[in-house]
Amino acid sequence: MDPVKRLTDLGLKLPNPPSPVANYVTYVKTNNLIFLSGCGPANYMNKNEQRGKIGKDINTREGYKIAKLVGLNLIARLKESIEDLNNLKEIVKLLVMINSTDDFTEHSKVANGCSDLLVEVFGQKGKHARSAIGLNSLPNNIPVEIEMIVKI
Amino acid sequence: MDPVKRLTDLGLKLPNPPSPVANYVTYVKTNNLIFLSGCGPANYMNKNEQRGKIGKDINTREGYKIAKLVGLNLIARLKESIEDLNNLKEIVKLLVMINSTDDFTEHSKVANGCSDLLVEVFGQKGKHARSAIGLNSLPNNIPVEIEMIVKI
Amino acid sequence: MDPVKRLTDLGLKLPNPPSPVANYVTYVKTNNLIFLSGCGPANYMNKNEQRGKIGKDINTREGYKIAKLVGLNLIARLKESIEDLNNLKEIVKLLVMINSTDDFTEHSKVANGCSDLLVEVFGQKGKHARSAIGLNSLPNNIPVEIEMIVKI
Repeated sequence: MDPVKRLTDLGLKLPNPPSPVANYVTYVKTNNLIFLSGCGPANYMNKNEQRGKIGKDINTREGYKIAKLVGLNLIARLKESIEDLNNLKEIVKLLVMINSTDDFTEHSKVANGCSDLLVEVFGQKGKHARSAIGLNSLPNNIPVEIEMIVKI
Repeated sequence: MDPVKRLTDLGLKLPNPPSPVANYVTYVKTNNLIFLSGCGPANYMNKNEQRGKIGKDINTREGYKIAKLVGLNLIARLKESIEDLNNLKEIVKLLVMINSTDDFTEHSKVANGCSDLLVEVFGQKGKHARSAIGLNSLPNNIPVEIEMIVKI
Repeated sequence: MDPVKRLTDLGLKLPNPPSPVANYVTYVKTNNLIFLSGCGPANYMNKNEQRGKIGKDINTREGYKIAKLVGLNLIARLKESIEDLNNLKEIVKLLVMINSTDDFTEHSKVANGCSDLLVEVFGQKGKHARSAIGLNSLPNNIPVEIEMIVKI
């Protein structure tokens, strides 16, 4: 399965990989692993981007779509780091961090927005370990931030 | 020290490893590391399982016991991944995530429920790096979620 | 660039590496990586240490300074683990966890307190992947906790 063809089949286009918003780099390759920095749903310059807490400002279904946007950004950064997405050996692990109300419980459904995308695009190689958690605040009030470890 | 014998000596029985509740796998082996997904205290089908926030619904002493249950689940998943627990080289790191009130401060005491178990069962190999943090919400309102990295 | 000389040039002195406050170790070396435990801003015995939430008890500018203190502690623990700081190959990744109010948004500015220090001390080797997130509570009400992965 060619991930670039899969993206096309799914009608998806990779965005420009979002730049870091502070003094860090978007990924570090170490041995045969790549550690990707926590990433939000969109280019931070996009003023129409949704902000706020899932469970109040944004519902679970919208949260799923936002986690998928984060996934696209992570794939864009991954492509920047390895050039050819076919060089991916496997997605190792996600930490899915959800800006949420104190009584939110549907983290798994939101996180699946990113997980489903990775499995659709990379197939068996896209199956990953994961933690999904609720945060009381995230940078710039983004609704979802995800960090990822992959093997090349 | 044989970890299976230690579990028996401690009067503990490994549960069935809990299934993932969404589109992810419970562990990924990569090189000689295993990344285990965030895990809760019990089988998600168990309706009698305690839910809620530590510091309000659940006290620190109960939280310790719940973190120990999470530890048992993690060992069960580890056994599933490496078959013989003697194949473990070392526990590398835990991220202990505690569903807590805003003024909770005893994260270390709760997290020790899992850490003490790992050291009791695996001895020197069970000594690990760790972070313990408070979350304002966790999936399905579970009180504790822990992810783990081990070396085999 | 010699990191010890850089620390001197910056007028900084490494503290004693803070001891763990519970049943864990401050770092685990595995393969050529070191996983450092979550670390707070100061020795836990220091009664004058600032405690509380950033966005309420502590402002962003003070948070930056606190994150820098955490960075110094992490470098002190790193030195304990590798003896000579010149043995560092690279800082791989930080997880910057900020004890914050629900409406806090300046996580990146706080986290830069640690990131700027690492780049000042280690130069190119100090550039790292990072996630910065807001927590509703941290152990002992410390304002910032940071965990780190490095390559040697």
